[in-house]
Amino acid sequence: MSARKEDFSKWYLKVIQDAGLSENSPVRGCMTMKPYGYAIWELIRDEFNKIIKEDGVKNCYFPLLIPMSYFAKEAEHVEGFAKEVAVVTHYRLKNNDGNLGIDENAKLEEPYVIRPTSETIIGEAMSRWIKSYRDLPLKLNQWANVMRWEMRTRPFLRTAEFLWQEGHNAFATEEESSENAKQVLRIYQNFVRDYLAMYSIGGTKTKEERFGGAKETYTFESMMQDGKSLQSGTSHDLSNNFAKAFNILYQNKDGKQELAYTTSWGITTRLIGAIIMSHSDDDGLILPPKIAPTQIIILPFIKKNTDNTLLLQKCDEIKQKLQSRGIRTEVDGDMDKRFSDKIWNSIRKGIPLRLELGERELEKEMITYVRRDLGKISKTTISIDEFIENSDSLLNEMQVDMYEKHKNFTNQNTKRCATLEECEKLFESGFIGFVELPLSETEKEEYDKVASTYKLTRRCMPFVDENFNLGESVIVAKSY
Amino acid sequence: MSARKEDFSKWYLKVIQDAGLSENSPVRGCMTMKPYGYAIWELIRDEFNKIIKEDGVKNCYFPLLIPMSYFAKEAEHVEGFAKEVAVVTHYRLKNNDGNLGIDENAKLEEPYVIRPTSETIIGEAMSRWIKSYRDLPLKLNQWANVMRWEMRTRPFLRTAEFLWQEGHNAFATEEESSENAKQVLRIYQNFVRDYLAMYSIGGTKTKEERFGGAKETYTFESMMQDGKSLQSGTSHDLSNNFAKAFNILYQNKDGKQELAYTTSWGITTRLIGAIIMSHSDDDGLILPPKIAPTQIIILPFIKKNTDNTLLLQKCDEIKQKLQSRGIRTEVDGDMDKRFSDKIWNSIRKGIPLRLELGERELEKEMITYVRRDLGKISKTTISIDEFIENSDSLLNEMQVDMYEKHKNFTNQNTKRCATLEECEKLFESGFIGFVELPLSETEKEEYDKVASTYKLTRRCMPFVDENFNLGESVIVAKSY
Repeated sequence: MSARKEDFSKWYLKVIQDAGLSENSPVRGCMTMKPYGYAIWELIRDEFNKIIKEDGVKNCYFPLLIPMSYFAKEAEHVEGFAKEVAVVTHYRLKNNDGNLGIDENAKLEEPYVIRPTSETIIGEAMSRWIKSYRDLPLKLNQWANVMRWEMRTRPFLRTAEFLWQEGHNAFATEEESSENAKQVLRIYQNFVRDYLAMYSIGGTKTKEERFGGAKETYTFESMMQDGKSLQSGTSHDLSNNFAKAFNILYQNKDGKQELAYTTSWGITTRLIGAIIMSHSDDDGLILPPKIAPTQIIILPFIKKNTDNTLLLQKCDEIKQKLQSRGIRTEVDGDMDKRFSDKIWNSIRKGIPLRLELGERELEKEMITYVRRDLGKISKTTISIDEFIENSDSLLNEMQVDMYEKHKNFTNQNTKRCATLEECEKLFESGFIGFVELPLSETEKEEYDKVASTYKLTRRCMPFVDENFNLGESVIVAKSY
Repeated sequence: MSARKEDFSKWYLKVIQDAGLSENSPVRGCMTMKPYGYAIWELIRDEFNKIIKEDGVKNCYFPLLIPMSYFAKEAEHVEGFAKEVAVVTHYRLKNNDGNLGIDENAKLEEPYVIRPTSETIIGEAMSRWIKSYRDLPLKLNQWANVMRWEMRTRPFLRTAEFLWQEGHNAFATEEESSENAKQVLRIYQNFVRDYLAMYSIGGTKTKEERFGGAKETYTFESMMQDGKSLQSGTSHDLSNNFAKAFNILYQNKDGKQELAYTTSWGITTRLIGAIIMSHSDDDGLILPPKIAPTQIIILPFIKKNTDNTLLLQKCDEIKQKLQSRGIRTEVDGDMDKRFSDKIWNSIRKGIPLRLELGERELEKEMITYVRRDLGKISKTTISIDEFIENSDSLLNEMQVDMYEKHKNFTNQNTKRCATLEECEKLFESGFIGFVELPLSETEKEEYDKVASTYKLTRRCMPFVDENFNLGESVIVAKSY
């Protein structure tokens, strides 16, 4: 039985460990992102940064700490977050005869909270930065760490501290903020499609799942290989709720003061967990080429007690040529490691293309490549020049194939049920995946029992077209 | 009298405000980095990132919180930092009849400290990550926020929370760690020279000024326009002090366990303060072209009640051409702003080159440019094609000129004194700048009185050559 089928959760942790993505830290619920995992995040950040800058978003940086009183200003917001925040109460330690402790004389008058999200403190700034309709729309974003005191944590998916971008936009009208919240969702879905090779279903959250303080929360949900749903990012239409709480007013063209309308939107290091669970296989990580820190690895077949100079020179030459095409390429020229270990290493790290080059190939100016997602079956020996010429399209093909595979997998494991009874029978029979149900069926009294038996939640009400029109159905599924 | 001469500190704050770099936040001692200030930091980060990646440094991310007990492990380190840390004691808030407060039932068993620096938690990771001599050298870095509870704060120069990079390297031998700490200092000095157009004096800190837990602290000090010294970054040779505290051991080639030797090194958002105080003038900010978010701004001379289409098209065409050369270019085509306001805006923002284009110039395919650092005197009208052709070298010339100016300023305000008496007389006469004194003179009893009268501190013992050899002198100066 495959490792994934046997114990998906154990498999997930092993993929992370084998690839060297992250590890648990000595701090409760916090992970350390190791260089390889962090490199993926850097690529996600840099690529997404370009996209939002095109959209007129300006990056900035707001304080890590938020005065406790700020949280009290938006009633639903505090309900949503008060349960899970780290609280700073003192600002000094003291050495008591060699025992380090808190200095009780250094107690803060008002405690600070480590930001779980920054609507409040950014709302306060917007109230000063926005004066007239000319200042709108205002689109701000920060790449930052946030903290939510989670009790059950899992690397990338749910950690006390995580990295994210949080966008905060302000508009003059309700129509604009509502339109923007949906527009950002589209940007997200296009981004995960084009860069992470992930298919996703976009829609709105039902009111139970809405962000505290939002009028509407838009979400995109992706199916993991165990059939569970992962909320991969959200975009909130905050209407004028935070504008009211923080006095975000602007003078309109007629000189009258009006409330602004805001949105907030975020994606997090959770996306790395989503990539792992969408694409990887029993052998380990599979990375979509666009966000792979190393896109091509070259493995020279080094013979002991032989002069490998020419071979290594050739590898370096190929590397240079690929790099000059903008392809992130490495050579594993370690003389002491076994060739088979190098192969396994490249597999576990999910490097999209592996090149093998031995003396025989060298003589013929040939090279052998293997695509990580397809494995041995894709093993091809072609001329070095031809490979270099085709390298971009090989990577692109892999990127597209991975997306198509994920899309097909999601569709194959999504069923439509006309009634709650049908849905119940489906899950009873062992089905794991998404079920699309008429909204009215989930409003029946019996729904709660079925949901609790099969641990289902309402994931989203999907859009039925490109214009963000909603149908009458809800996706229910197990979820992360 | 110039604004700088009259009140340097007030001038500094005004430059920041006028350029829109940052503002005080509602959180004690923390600033908000506004989009323009943050854009400068992004450029510094991205450029420096390239340099350290070339040096084999791997970025990663460690937790924000550090268990209090970790601080106790290195005696000098805790002395250096215990006085100024934010302490997290609880993990939940509670709503008491509408009053938000701390939930006393959610008290942590061991408090956490918000990292003031991460030697301890990274040391703990290194103790697990390093197993054999093959794992060395290990070069890690993180771009992160840190917090030191400062009582007297000033934007960019001294804030409770700041952004930085902290590098942490590990080596097999003491020679290597010592060499690396110096090598990193050189990387820093070259970086500030080439990107920030800043001259600096490199050397070692006297023992009083050393980092808590370091064997040697290397620093580079730059002279601000008020003659004070600013420590712009440091590189610490930690010897095996942290290796002892955190058990960072490796197996050497003979199979024996040995202690590793580590270094740590950092530059911060303080560099933005350094740029301001090194280069700016009474009119406002002057940015070195290499880290200017906008390198060239194009100001069309828009006439009301006229068709400006051709003019704006031309501006856009020039912008496209400059951008395709990799030059960050903007057009200020706002129809409602006055031309003179646009000019002032570009001056206050320190944009290196300003282009002015009116109907007359347009007819002749000419353009007028002004260099921000030279002002009106540099006003030149040349053909548009010629300008575009020369744009890179114009920017480079400005970069180099700014460096030379700063270097000359520093040299002009640096005096050598043979004796403490000579030094005292100099400061008595109103001198503000650096004084280089024989080390032995600062070891005299009378030194402390002189230092305290004129608020001097030992900034560094400068290297006398490229091989990091130390002379017998110390730079004393007022400082930030």
